[in-house]
Amino acid sequence: MFKLEKKDKSTKARAGVIKTAHGLIETPVFMPVGTQGTVKAMSPDELKKIKVQIILGNTYHLYLRPGMEVIKEAGGLHKFANWNGPILTDSGGYQVFSMSALRDISEEGVYFRSHLDGSEHFIGPRESIEIQEVLGSDIAMVFDECTPFPTTHDYACNSVTLSVKWAGFCKEVHRLKNQALFGIVQGSIYSDLRRKCADQLVDIGFDGYAIGGLSVGEPDSVMYEVIDITEPCLPEDKPRYLMGCGTPLNLLEVIAKGMDMFDCVMPTRNARNGSAFTSHGKINIRNEKFKKDFSSVEKNCKCYVCSHYSRAYLRHLIVAGEILGARLLTYHNLYFYTKLMRDARKAILKGKFEKFKDNFIKEYSN
Amino acid sequence: MFKLEKKDKSTKARAGVIKTAHGLIETPVFMPVGTQGTVKAMSPDELKKIKVQIILGNTYHLYLRPGMEVIKEAGGLHKFANWNGPILTDSGGYQVFSMSALRDISEEGVYFRSHLDGSEHFIGPRESIEIQEVLGSDIAMVFDECTPFPTTHDYACNSVTLSVKWAGFCKEVHRLKNQALFGIVQGSIYSDLRRKCADQLVDIGFDGYAIGGLSVGEPDSVMYEVIDITEPCLPEDKPRYLMGCGTPLNLLEVIAKGMDMFDCVMPTRNARNGSAFTSHGKINIRNEKFKKDFSSVEKNCKCYVCSHYSRAYLRHLIVAGEILGARLLTYHNLYFYTKLMRDARKAILKGKFEKFKDNFIKEYSN
Repeated sequence: MFKLEKKDKSTKARAGVIKTAHGLIETPVFMPVGTQGTVKAMSPDELKKIKVQIILGNTYHLYLRPGMEVIKEAGGLHKFANWNGPILTDSGGYQVFSMSALRDISEEGVYFRSHLDGSEHFIGPRESIEIQEVLGSDIAMVFDECTPFPTTHDYACNSVTLSVKWAGFCKEVHRLKNQALFGIVQGSIYSDLRRKCADQLVDIGFDGYAIGGLSVGEPDSVMYEVIDITEPCLPEDKPRYLMGCGTPLNLLEVIAKGMDMFDCVMPTRNARNGSAFTSHGKINIRNEKFKKDFSSVEKNCKCYVCSHYSRAYLRHLIVAGEILGARLLTYHNLYFYTKLMRDARKAILKGKFEKFKDNFIKEYSN
Repeated sequence: MFKLEKKDKSTKARAGVIKTAHGLIETPVFMPVGTQGTVKAMSPDELKKIKVQIILGNTYHLYLRPGMEVIKEAGGLHKFANWNGPILTDSGGYQVFSMSALRDISEEGVYFRSHLDGSEHFIGPRESIEIQEVLGSDIAMVFDECTPFPTTHDYACNSVTLSVKWAGFCKEVHRLKNQALFGIVQGSIYSDLRRKCADQLVDIGFDGYAIGGLSVGEPDSVMYEVIDITEPCLPEDKPRYLMGCGTPLNLLEVIAKGMDMFDCVMPTRNARNGSAFTSHGKINIRNEKFKKDFSSVEKNCKCYVCSHYSRAYLRHLIVAGEILGARLLTYHNLYFYTKLMRDARKAILKGKFEKFKDNFIKEYSN
């Protein structure tokens, strides 16, 4: 399923290809978040134009709305959402623990109340896998508990034990051909727990491994340390997915630490708030100084938005609350993120990743 | 500027072509409303795909935000908004009277407070024409007072006197080459005032004539009567624009009464609320019955949305508050409106308008 094409010599950066039922994914790869069956403000056609290779769907949200009966009758999430590229679905665990009102947690799973209408539901490893089977994603994730930051060692230790048990159960009940199943390493900031969790998951054996429980409010330095500790425990011949990360600088740092796949709401959510990513850092288009700035968001950007629209117009749209403003900034930001990944990959393949990374960081931070 | 191509024999329907600085417009034509420099939820590219021929911009809104300095430096509204097709701008009168806090009305114009921030402004016929000159629209409208419904004969009479005076002054100060200037017939529901206003405007002489003060809450029958009274006063060789109208059935009725141009927020605003137009009438996509309806919004519709998305998915998007839902329904509704106008035009050119209209109404009302 995963072919490692090139390993960087001066960092741990890797270039690879993941084979899925809906096409190949070249790594490193950024996966836009499509929580409710759509990447917010974007059409599938636009995602293709930006060369988005894979999108993420959220099991918890889709399970609650429109519900599994609808998706089942639609023939899966691809058909429902008119997206024929690869899809990764999370397990629902993160949202069950962070968004819903919990009623009861047991080894079988979690009773919770919907954040939408208070209705009661149960999701455990079996249910999560069944839901992801209906969604028909190309990559499914095991059901786990994502511990918040900070968490005590005791809590994290018990949580890892439960998450590993759930991971094993997920693998047992997983049966969909053409759907990969990834394990998720938890363990908060604790080296012993991270190593233990990773080792046990690798023993069970998955198609890929995610590092979860990061990008939850901890300092970047802590995130990087956890990755440094965990990465050596992961097999080289499987893709590694760092969940929920991050800024453009974060992404380059963690690529250098051997991570392959990423997802984050930052480019899409920030766009709707008026933030645009450029090679010289993030700008807030609402700023008064852009009122009569008729240059493009980014000088040499080749995206549709930068070829056709000015900062002044985008500022106007965002300030006026126009949907087109959210659309255009989302488009640009996703283009920026996907291009960053393509450029990083090219640099890795050419053996010039470290230089590329240093140059990008220098320009971005100035 | 206007070429009358064909007159229907059994109705007053007309097919024509309006020549503007940014291209030809085939009539009858529906003009999507682009209040703040964007047709809500749509990109200019999408408007072109739907074969939208001309969009409307609102002088009042654009004057307040982003303001004339910005549009001037951008080189006009076309460049600012990346729309190279024809634009019609209203005069600002309607919004000054309906949206802002009025301070003082005189023969020179209106002092008012912005609905956005309470700031004080003055717009009269001179200012309106100057603003529309900066906007650089292809068709400008005279500054007028749009009386509400109902209005007394006394009020309407004085208002017509003022509006005609303003219309004359607008023509005097209008100087932009390549920008047409349309007069607006007011007079509420009063035949004598409508006739007087139309006659006086025709005496002044404009490139086209609008009927204003309708679609403001009066019954359809009253609107139709006013058009029947006014239309014979308008010269045949100029385009007639019925402002703010209407439903698909309204449009066919008023085309039959000799109207050529139309604008309405209905297809766009309704879309954002989940209403979709079909040849069998309007449907509310939020309805529970569409939850597992995997057919397209309209069976034989050739639009992008109907070719790619199901009612069930659109329902999900709208219920979940996703921007893509507003986008896709807006797209379909504008396609529906523009196609209705194209079909009406074809029928007129073939001498079969009445039959087309009867068939459409029959199907739509069933």
